[in-house]
Amino acid sequence: MSSVDQALTQQELQSMHAYWRACNYLAAGMIYLRANPLLKEPLKPEHVKKRLLGHWGASPGLSFTYIHMNRLINKYDLDAIFLAGPGHGAPGVLAPVYLEGTYSEIYPNKGEDEEGMGHFFKEFSFPGGIGSHCTPETPGSIHEGGELGYSVSHAFGAAYDNPDLIVTVMVGDGESETGALATSWHSNKFLNPIRDGAVLPVLHLNGYKINNPTILSRISHEELEALFKGYGWQPYFVEGSDPLEMHQKMAATMETCVQEIRRLQQEARSSGKPVRPRWPMIVLRSPKGWTGPHKVDGHKVEGFWRAHQVPLGSVQENPQHLAQLESWLRSYKPEELFDATGKLLPELKQLAPKGQRRMSANLHANGGMLRRALCMPDFREYGAAIDKPGTVSAENTRPLGKLLRDVMRENMTNFRVFGPDENSSNKLDDVYAVSKKVWMADYLPEDADGGELSPDGRVMEMLSEHTLEGWLEGYLLTGRHGFFSTYEAFVHVIDSMFNQHAKWLAMSKAVSWRAPISSLNLLITSTVWRQDHNGFTHQDPGFLDLVVNKSPDVTRIYLPPDVNCLLSVGAHCLKSTDYINVIVSDKQKHLQYLDMESAIKHCTKGIGIWDWASNDAGYEPDIVMASAGDIPTKEALAAVVLLREHFPDIKVRYVNVVDLYKLTPQSEHPHGLSDKDFDSLFTLDKPVVFNFHGYPQLIHRLAYRRHNHGNWHVRGYKEKGSINTPLELAIQNEIDRFSLVIDAIDRIPRLQVAGAHVKEKMRNMQIDCRNYAYEHGVDLPEVDHWTWPY
Amino acid sequence: MSSVDQALTQQELQSMHAYWRACNYLAAGMIYLRANPLLKEPLKPEHVKKRLLGHWGASPGLSFTYIHMNRLINKYDLDAIFLAGPGHGAPGVLAPVYLEGTYSEIYPNKGEDEEGMGHFFKEFSFPGGIGSHCTPETPGSIHEGGELGYSVSHAFGAAYDNPDLIVTVMVGDGESETGALATSWHSNKFLNPIRDGAVLPVLHLNGYKINNPTILSRISHEELEALFKGYGWQPYFVEGSDPLEMHQKMAATMETCVQEIRRLQQEARSSGKPVRPRWPMIVLRSPKGWTGPHKVDGHKVEGFWRAHQVPLGSVQENPQHLAQLESWLRSYKPEELFDATGKLLPELKQLAPKGQRRMSANLHANGGMLRRALCMPDFREYGAAIDKPGTVSAENTRPLGKLLRDVMRENMTNFRVFGPDENSSNKLDDVYAVSKKVWMADYLPEDADGGELSPDGRVMEMLSEHTLEGWLEGYLLTGRHGFFSTYEAFVHVIDSMFNQHAKWLAMSKAVSWRAPISSLNLLITSTVWRQDHNGFTHQDPGFLDLVVNKSPDVTRIYLPPDVNCLLSVGAHCLKSTDYINVIVSDKQKHLQYLDMESAIKHCTKGIGIWDWASNDAGYEPDIVMASAGDIPTKEALAAVVLLREHFPDIKVRYVNVVDLYKLTPQSEHPHGLSDKDFDSLFTLDKPVVFNFHGYPQLIHRLAYRRHNHGNWHVRGYKEKGSINTPLELAIQNEIDRFSLVIDAIDRIPRLQVAGAHVKEKMRNMQIDCRNYAYEHGVDLPEVDHWTWPY
Repeated sequence: MSSVDQALTQQELQSMHAYWRACNYLAAGMIYLRANPLLKEPLKPEHVKKRLLGHWGASPGLSFTYIHMNRLINKYDLDAIFLAGPGHGAPGVLAPVYLEGTYSEIYPNKGEDEEGMGHFFKEFSFPGGIGSHCTPETPGSIHEGGELGYSVSHAFGAAYDNPDLIVTVMVGDGESETGALATSWHSNKFLNPIRDGAVLPVLHLNGYKINNPTILSRISHEELEALFKGYGWQPYFVEGSDPLEMHQKMAATMETCVQEIRRLQQEARSSGKPVRPRWPMIVLRSPKGWTGPHKVDGHKVEGFWRAHQVPLGSVQENPQHLAQLESWLRSYKPEELFDATGKLLPELKQLAPKGQRRMSANLHANGGMLRRALCMPDFREYGAAIDKPGTVSAENTRPLGKLLRDVMRENMTNFRVFGPDENSSNKLDDVYAVSKKVWMADYLPEDADGGELSPDGRVMEMLSEHTLEGWLEGYLLTGRHGFFSTYEAFVHVIDSMFNQHAKWLAMSKAVSWRAPISSLNLLITSTVWRQDHNGFTHQDPGFLDLVVNKSPDVTRIYLPPDVNCLLSVGAHCLKSTDYINVIVSDKQKHLQYLDMESAIKHCTKGIGIWDWASNDAGYEPDIVMASAGDIPTKEALAAVVLLREHFPDIKVRYVNVVDLYKLTPQSEHPHGLSDKDFDSLFTLDKPVVFNFHGYPQLIHRLAYRRHNHGNWHVRGYKEKGSINTPLELAIQNEIDRFSLVIDAIDRIPRLQVAGAHVKEKMRNMQIDCRNYAYEHGVDLPEVDHWTWPY
Repeated sequence: MSSVDQALTQQELQSMHAYWRACNYLAAGMIYLRANPLLKEPLKPEHVKKRLLGHWGASPGLSFTYIHMNRLINKYDLDAIFLAGPGHGAPGVLAPVYLEGTYSEIYPNKGEDEEGMGHFFKEFSFPGGIGSHCTPETPGSIHEGGELGYSVSHAFGAAYDNPDLIVTVMVGDGESETGALATSWHSNKFLNPIRDGAVLPVLHLNGYKINNPTILSRISHEELEALFKGYGWQPYFVEGSDPLEMHQKMAATMETCVQEIRRLQQEARSSGKPVRPRWPMIVLRSPKGWTGPHKVDGHKVEGFWRAHQVPLGSVQENPQHLAQLESWLRSYKPEELFDATGKLLPELKQLAPKGQRRMSANLHANGGMLRRALCMPDFREYGAAIDKPGTVSAENTRPLGKLLRDVMRENMTNFRVFGPDENSSNKLDDVYAVSKKVWMADYLPEDADGGELSPDGRVMEMLSEHTLEGWLEGYLLTGRHGFFSTYEAFVHVIDSMFNQHAKWLAMSKAVSWRAPISSLNLLITSTVWRQDHNGFTHQDPGFLDLVVNKSPDVTRIYLPPDVNCLLSVGAHCLKSTDYINVIVSDKQKHLQYLDMESAIKHCTKGIGIWDWASNDAGYEPDIVMASAGDIPTKEALAAVVLLREHFPDIKVRYVNVVDLYKLTPQSEHPHGLSDKDFDSLFTLDKPVVFNFHGYPQLIHRLAYRRHNHGNWHVRGYKEKGSINTPLELAIQNEIDRFSLVIDAIDRIPRLQVAGAHVKEKMRNMQIDCRNYAYEHGVDLPEVDHWTWPY
């Protein structure tokens, strides 16, 4: 016998196998049984659920890996958590979670007895029960896996800045075909063995998806090994189907990997040299639906795609299926695993780690418990000095970058900044003064002049929005803080991840034992209105339309118009928990409006009349001009000036919106204004011209139930324009000052005649602007350098 | 000299180098010059654009590869096209496109003379001009590359079923970090060398993104080679910076690759054995901004990230920069390349391929020119026989699958079906009777029983929505047809690709020389209302909210309520061009309503009163009940029955919407109903209860300008429910029949008193349904098996 075959003593081997049989029994039980959980009676149709849901296929491999990690947790006193990539694999996780007692501690009606096991079985994939993924209700889960592709990036997010943690992550071979997963293997170029923990991926080659083989299971061993070496990993292979042999192989291999991880960490930590090692990973090739029915109705099931979901589908109607189910369930010999009351036998129970060493009870997987609030410098100190609104310009994001720099300085172990190769472009590069970009790949001499790279960096830049979002989610879910900025054009790349995280948060809030985690803060910049030079492709402000579909309990949207508002909003978001805060702010130079105290007041209210821009004090206004977003605000204010210049007796009220949800009724979102407050801003019957950053319909969607909505006229992006100057792009989409003046005139009854020549003038101005731009390639200087005149 | 160094004779070498210098001169000229295109005068600030845009960094490598492909096109009479993955790399493509004359042929004001060159330079990244990507205005482009990640999947889409075509695709090393790109290398497992053409990827390791090194350029040669061998490719390396040496290496290597491609194809085609070979690819490691300024202001530029965009930024203000720009431009010696009139010298001109062999004039890249209409069987023959509405059930998608099967049979060289491992799950598996799933990876004996795999298959299944969407786009853009189905929960994965393709189509329609291509047909199935068993994560019908943001010229949305409507809509979509048709239809068994003739009539109108479900003939209705989507329709009709049962004297009109854009005003979308027609359906003042498949706000967004909108009450998904039965999920979101009855009663004035007990009864029914579901795990049979009673 080789050493591999001796990793476990015979007794250990038998115990582990028994423990695994218990897992598999529970997994199958969850899928099938609603009564008779210990099979004390012969199995009858009425014991079986009518609707069979959940996926058997991935489950045995998941619990196989889980319990082998358990062994090493005990042996080496490891601090470890477990992420299950394969979709619907929850039975393979819930089973060991239940066996180690955590489930019953948290959900006392799912006790470690026959009745509890019965409840535990019944609630799985059952109306009013729990899902077939590792949802937030699953103790120890930070990765639901409903949508595939994010397991490895989540795992790395959890490992960063957790030097002692080992994040075991099962990666499905189906999931491996997704783009997000395929690039996330490169995360190893961003992990520093001195400061960060380790990720131990177990690629589960169980060979099949719903109806197809998987690519990675059908290429040669040589290609497979080359692929992962190319990704920078050292793959170890555990392949086979005989359980006892596989236990020995897995025990030996996993132990080798853990030892290797510790050796690599030790080497880096003792030498102080953070090189990128070739981290170990495991390729576990085992049959799909392992230990389940070999054949059903003459067709191969175990080790084929037919084992993906429910191997025996007609148990209610087909007595042969029922008999086969019974003999399958009995093949695990539950009577040898559980005592008569349904409790796991003590000699098996002792195989599980204890207390918070249990992966299901590890606090890293309930990160809010470990979360420490950020040490926050006073954001007021980063503000722009504003003597008079609308007269000086500044890059809106740069002071935020300075704030982030000092937040970083104060929180060098639990805060990171994320952005796809764009933090400099987004004018957040002051952060590099405190912390560079982490880089564990090769260095060249030229990096010294402007590379801003370091193994110790805490700024995460990789050209994969998926990976960044995954890292950030993993980092937040384990109790830390982060800030993500991305170009507006490309934020749609992570639409789906946003949806998933919002859904996770919404459900988490209903799970009493989950402590709040830091909000996911997403700055959308290089916005549509400054992507005139990149053309049509780069122009899309539609992410917000997705955001408003998600639960009002977890979504927040801010459109700060200037530096001080952005700082106020940014600081607020960094302190908040359990939200996704979406902030829209362009990076370029823009007019500044509010001094710091005004900005704080304005952002705290979220919406308000800017008195200095209005001339309706003491009167009913003739028109309400409103805006949300930096560039739309500039244009709206310029339109106010033009209106007041041309029609001094017209009363104009200007309303600025920072917190977009203020527009929606209180019943729809906690930030929604009461109708009374709303009406006091927008009147009951006066025309409202609203200039919006995004697609105009979003404003209608939020405000259509308001009393005066029939008088609202909204401008925003409407897929016009391409390569233009900023103003010309605005003109094409009619969010420019001239269009707004025309809109206003059209809506003020007493200007119908008097306004005609002004409208004509505005149209001529638009033509002049266009002609100048087409001739000179830039905007008319006087328009570009406009300031507030009053 | 080794053979590598002798691929080109000295004369060839000098000519190619001169041609490349011309490309580089043009690329730099596009970025900088607005006058003095041939540098006949000393360079002055006024010759230079005020706003410097476009990316120099990737350009030299792009044209380097382009012209080396040109050489082989001439030598071997190749049929080839060129895709430029690197973002903003258009100067490197536009330059050779202009030099080979296509640009001037298509855009006569950009002639091959000094004036034309001047226009050509000025319009680049200039207001009113063309973008810095390979936009639809670029002859020969089928890949804009504004968003990164899709070059390789587009390339494969183009190569499928084009056995003689070689698709050269430059892949940026920045782009390579995206998820979509990282998994698309596996496309080689789906390409059959007998039937399909070849993809020749050139991975361009120019080392940097905007501000960072790229991962693939900073790993060891050993890892890099292993990675691509692992992906199943044979990488050939061309590395260096000396242009003359690099020309020799590239010429030799590219020729080797082309010969290898032809050999592999020949081998497979003569033997008839379609094995998966290790296809060749090239890794081109050359300096970023190659041949541009080495250093600027003392900082390294060539070969560093500073060369990414505009190497010299202050040309207007800084005389040293201006001088450096001039000497850089003159280093290409334009006077040796162009004659005094600005025409490329004839000895260089002859290096370009001729006519449609020019990659910029290849018809595959203007696929509409090659498109043949599908041979379509009569979809009527696949219909369900319906004697009476709402009494029989059928799986809505299965007959569509039969139609697709026969479309496939009739179009075995230019039609494919796409789906991520879900065509069987989506009940479209009849298609396998004619064509299996293409599979070029390994086979196992068990595949024979239910594997449905074949090297000749025309159904494309890989668990990457990104790759599938990219293949399909590439396939359509080269003049073929396709059909894509995906789970509603996961369609958000390709939000961003949908946006990009919609933008491409919208722009293409404005490009006169681009012929219409087949529509992208996207079936969204396994919809939100039948994801009750998968839980909260899988429930999201919000893709439509994105669709409506895109140009009405290219977007269509259909929600056919039953088999016959789905067939009618599906057949219509398959025949259409230049749209993205989004069809929402669940795959499960549903009630059937319309016989084929009624369905055709109804779908042609897109919206209409169902007389058989209404009892308002000859009267004004008391209420209009309306719906869009299969499950909402079933519930709305059941509500109509309950209303009529309980209140026989109430007049109910039922309106069904198939074509969602009918709701929006005519001014907003060509399908929009006139207000007159709209009012005749929905009345001017009667309450409307609308039951919608998606988020209810979308209906408000479409209809808020309609006269009677104030009386509209819309139900739809509102992020409620998780693991439920279908009916219970409907109840939680209030789209169920009972909720709708309550809604209707609340809105009919004369039922305010009389309706109270019925409302109570409805609420009790909801409780009964829930209790039954929680007890039995399935819906109340009588509700589940409801049929239309009249």
